Amino acid sequence: MIYRNYPMVSKVVFGRGSFSQLSDIIAPKRLNVKAPFIYLVDDVFKGNLKLTSRISLAYDDELIFISANEEPKTSQVDALVEQIILKHKDKPSGIIGIGGGTVLDLAKAVAIMLTNTGESKDYQGWDLVKQPAIYHVGVPTISGTGSEVSRTTVLTGPEKKLGINSDYTPFDQVVLDPELTNGVPKNQWFYTGMDCFIHCVESLNGTYLNAFSQSYGEKAYDLCKEIFYDNSGTAEELQDKLMMASWHGGMSIAYSQVGVAHAMSYGLGYLLGVKHGIGNCIVFNHLEEFYPKDVVLFKKMVQLHDIEIPEGICANLEDYQFDIMIDVALSLEPLWENAIGENWKKTITRERLKALYQKM
Amino acid sequence: MIYRNYPMVSKVVFGRGSFSQLSDIIAPKRLNVKAPFIYLVDDVFKGNLKLTSRISLAYDDELIFISANEEPKTSQVDALVEQIILKHKDKPSGIIGIGGGTVLDLAKAVAIMLTNTGESKDYQGWDLVKQPAIYHVGVPTISGTGSEVSRTTVLTGPEKKLGINSDYTPFDQVVLDPELTNGVPKNQWFYTGMDCFIHCVESLNGTYLNAFSQSYGEKAYDLCKEIFYDNSGTAEELQDKLMMASWHGGMSIAYSQVGVAHAMSYGLGYLLGVKHGIGNCIVFNHLEEFYPKDVVLFKKMVQLHDIEIPEGICANLEDYQFDIMIDVALSLEPLWENAIGENWKKTITRERLKALYQKM
Repeated sequence: MIYRNYPMVSKVVFGRGSFSQLSDIIAPKRLNVKAPFIYLVDDVFKGNLKLTSRISLAYDDELIFISANEEPKTSQVDALVEQIILKHKDKPSGIIGIGGGTVLDLAKAVAIMLTNTGESKDYQGWDLVKQPAIYHVGVPTISGTGSEVSRTTVLTGPEKKLGINSDYTPFDQVVLDPELTNGVPKNQWFYTGMDCFIHCVESLNGTYLNAFSQSYGEKAYDLCKEIFYDNSGTAEELQDKLMMASWHGGMSIAYSQVGVAHAMSYGLGYLLGVKHGIGNCIVFNHLEEFYPKDVVLFKKMVQLHDIEIPEGICANLEDYQFDIMIDVALSLEPLWENAIGENWKKTITRERLKALYQKM
Repeated sequence: MIYRNYPMVSKVVFGRGSFSQLSDIIAPKRLNVKAPFIYLVDDVFKGNLKLTSRISLAYDDELIFISANEEPKTSQVDALVEQIILKHKDKPSGIIGIGGGTVLDLAKAVAIMLTNTGESKDYQGWDLVKQPAIYHVGVPTISGTGSEVSRTTVLTGPEKKLGINSDYTPFDQVVLDPELTNGVPKNQWFYTGMDCFIHCVESLNGTYLNAFSQSYGEKAYDLCKEIFYDNSGTAEELQDKLMMASWHGGMSIAYSQVGVAHAMSYGLGYLLGVKHGIGNCIVFNHLEEFYPKDVVLFKKMVQLHDIEIPEGICANLEDYQFDIMIDVALSLEPLWENAIGENWKKTITRERLKALYQKM
């Protein structure tokens, strides 16, 4: 058995208000005055001076607002890279992503594609990246995705929804400032938090489980329960805890794998553009047969917070569309192997997946 | 408030038998045939072919056995560095520490001192290291110290027992192979495991606590309880869990601080050469007034495993010797500030520490 050699985030700051340290932290990384820092910022912060006034642009530094309404695409990465190369004489000193999973994944992918030739779709897969990325920093503003700690950046390409998994993908620096998650809309808070919860469920119930993943997964699972079920603590404490849950949940799947919900959610995302967090919830809601105890707990949490999980989104789909989703889901072989075991193909049939999608 | 920017271990492998991957992992780091890998190996493995046969020495690579009977010293670091420089034409490609906290700390310190001028005692303190260390790898063979994940290397110098705390101290690579902890003598297993338990107690009860440290500390604390109190799981599962407890316990104090037991244990170590793990146990045994609930739990675990905690080691000391220990303990101001709060000097008097030492 060959074990993974997992690359960790190089440096991490944690604390309420720590975002104010960002400028000082990155200053020594400036290569020269023509090599700018490029900030990719979720456009929900447009006009939010509390955040933007703390980003100090010097020389040719640039702030680019990014809409996170859609899942990140390879075409979007390539366009951003082209825009940056055309505008600036030197390669950037660093890419700083400030936002949720979408913006963080874009920041990681842009940092990689600034030093690797060709198109980003060519790097979707495992260990295809050849050159170290540009210095890149992640600042999550919503908790749950685990993107801040992972070695992947999940992109929707022309042919597949798949991550750029590589040793060069993880951030060189992460700033965990739970204060930045103030004001996240309730539904989004819940859907993204459930991304973390589902990471833990899929890791802890998977065949790839080991003591490393288990210890991180159990902690993140317990934190999710404290936050979404027990609801114990002040608003600030719950924000702090959820940011740590996301971190530990990310580390848990780093050393194991996700499972059924993620595989099927990727299908929904690819075909219908359903965002990852809500997609996971839509799928998980119907996975009693795979994760009985945790689907019950999930439904209780949905009820407690009065969240609406969309239903019937597959009601009017045609057969060829189900086939597309099923193809995407089945292509994610490690996820099924983790969830079901080596012989997963015996029980995970196209018909079974179609029947599940039809319920959603 | 300025938050710490914590440097993490760059890469980590976890798994039973993962030690066999070491050669493949470090191979790409060889600078040239004259730049050897230097293995510092705990001398308990002398003649243990199960371990040494898996270390493949090529070119000028060298294996140096290290006695861990005493706490690591600055003089020992300087002697090792001199020995390596005199023997080899080029600077090493890497230093690989295989052992417990003593050997791991030596490996970190040697890697630093191969690129930084002067003596290692000049670097005891915080952020005094100027040059990046040589590539260094940590392979723990006993669990609990957290040295594998920390940014310090605690050394006894001519004037003080204090760590070389720096961003260059953490390992570039860690191999967590719980199988290597087979055969650790029971007392040592307990004392070193309690080092982890005490890290958690001191972190979780400290004024520096934050959600980052808390999440790691709670997980490591729970794992210690599972291992030493509930005793639940197979021998292999308990080894796996203890290795993760050590890792998480190390991360917990990374972002907070230790407390009373460590401060006083450093005094014992400096004056009497008491090893760190057992020293912590000797001290913690008498700290009911600071950590009431956890000292009770500690005593139960001592009893359950039929461990003898030495007593009376200070019985015949003279006043000037108590003064030395008290000086060392009181010099560790951040530990007291964490344990007691800003105004710790009001309650932590020389008399109080002397009375405590006299009980030990």
